[in-house]
Amino acid sequence: MTGGRREGGAELAPPPGESPIIVLVRPQLGENIGTAARAMANGGLFHMRIVAPRDGWPQPYAWRAASGADKILDAATIHPTVADAVADCHRVFATCPRPRHIVIPVRTARAAAEDLREINARPLRAAVLFGPERAGLDNEEMACADTLVRYPLNPAHMSLNLAQAVMILAYEWWTATEPTPAREFMTNETRVANKGEVDGLLGRLMVELDASGFLDNQAKRAGMVRNLAHWFQRGEVTTQELRTLHGVVTELSRGRMRRGRKPDLDESPPWDDPA
Amino acid sequence: MTGGRREGGAELAPPPGESPIIVLVRPQLGENIGTAARAMANGGLFHMRIVAPRDGWPQPYAWRAASGADKILDAATIHPTVADAVADCHRVFATCPRPRHIVIPVRTARAAAEDLREINARPLRAAVLFGPERAGLDNEEMACADTLVRYPLNPAHMSLNLAQAVMILAYEWWTATEPTPAREFMTNETRVANKGEVDGLLGRLMVELDASGFLDNQAKRAGMVRNLAHWFQRGEVTTQELRTLHGVVTELSRGRMRRGRKPDLDESPPWDDPA
Repeated sequence: MTGGRREGGAELAPPPGESPIIVLVRPQLGENIGTAARAMANGGLFHMRIVAPRDGWPQPYAWRAASGADKILDAATIHPTVADAVADCHRVFATCPRPRHIVIPVRTARAAAEDLREINARPLRAAVLFGPERAGLDNEEMACADTLVRYPLNPAHMSLNLAQAVMILAYEWWTATEPTPAREFMTNETRVANKGEVDGLLGRLMVELDASGFLDNQAKRAGMVRNLAHWFQRGEVTTQELRTLHGVVTELSRGRMRRGRKPDLDESPPWDDPA
Repeated sequence: MTGGRREGGAELAPPPGESPIIVLVRPQLGENIGTAARAMANGGLFHMRIVAPRDGWPQPYAWRAASGADKILDAATIHPTVADAVADCHRVFATCPRPRHIVIPVRTARAAAEDLREINARPLRAAVLFGPERAGLDNEEMACADTLVRYPLNPAHMSLNLAQAVMILAYEWWTATEPTPAREFMTNETRVANKGEVDGLLGRLMVELDASGFLDNQAKRAGMVRNLAHWFQRGEVTTQELRTLHGVVTELSRGRMRRGRKPDLDESPPWDDPA
């Protein structure tokens, strides 16, 4: 309900338009601050503010746990209160179990990430509050937030590590605009074979199997050939794999010719019964 | 391409149909095994298998870091190789940077979670491999997987902590069937006020503002009233908030009557100029 207010000069300063600010409120362990920074870097969040860290600042353990996210810690600012940390922000989200004493819109982490992308694009400056390990945000700190973020997780085991809470939000922030296709067929230096190429292999296989006598039973032949064809059509085959399979057919045929006999029962492939 | 094979008795055993198996491959730190178990519990994954843990098993550090996910560690099984760990599984996913030497379908974590839900519902038994800290899975271990899982994350900082990698998959696993609405208005013991209730407050406010002389400027009056109304309509207001606002109007009116004067310029609200 404060969105309609006109406010002072601080509001008019150009917002960074880069990424939301992660505010760690009264964090207890330096290591958790470091792993939170690492998670932020993973998800493309670069601005950290820290409210009243229990063990002071800087803390060497934070840098040790950051795994290369040092720049985020180097640039982190320290604030006495949440109100001070978010004074220049236009929107404040809080990650918190549902408090019973306030009325506030709730978003899943995914919907919050979409909101944050929109806010960022306007551009306005957004912050996301993460409470201390165990205790969470207190009432006064919650009052600084306009939106609550909830993580849909197993209600029988909701206790989230601080860095993991940051990780999920950072992951959703990145994913909200990520163009990676959800399903992809990895081809590297090969490509998916077309139907003609697959039929080429199948045809050669039939010739060799006919020559070996494997398909001699005319009553069963059609079913066996159909089963073989279905097996090849079940998934995508790459041209590289087809080359390998041609080699296998060639090698097995040579072996048969060398040995000059039909395959033993033990050598029969698993598709020998079309029933 | 192995999907068409008929296999031995192990395949016919009823799969658990509960949740995919998380396979930690050659994990180095007991603490990471514990935080991985915690992340699994958060996301409703309960079956852990561990391949050749560097420091043996059990490791007290794992239980200390598990924050209540002890049952997962208690039930975890130890295996000499990945092949042994997944021998009774029908599908094997691997979380791994893109290897150049094999051809394998790739899924984002979100699409993989949907796949895992489908596989689980059939029901078939699925496993997800997580390689050791730093090194990742080796070629032989990767060959046990039929599908690769990629996490869309900041390419400039991809290095994921083991527990965070498990956390993202567990989160997606849970979210894939989670009914939590993405956007929700938290009402607790109150409800969203209807338009009539909001108009009731607005009407009272107009009466008081007219009485105070605040709306005396007839040329500006319509615009000022419209702006006030717009401000109240901007978001959802709860009946609880309306009660509070009625109290505010009452109290301010009494103050005016007590003081017997019009408000000073300093007291004028921020919406005093409709221009």
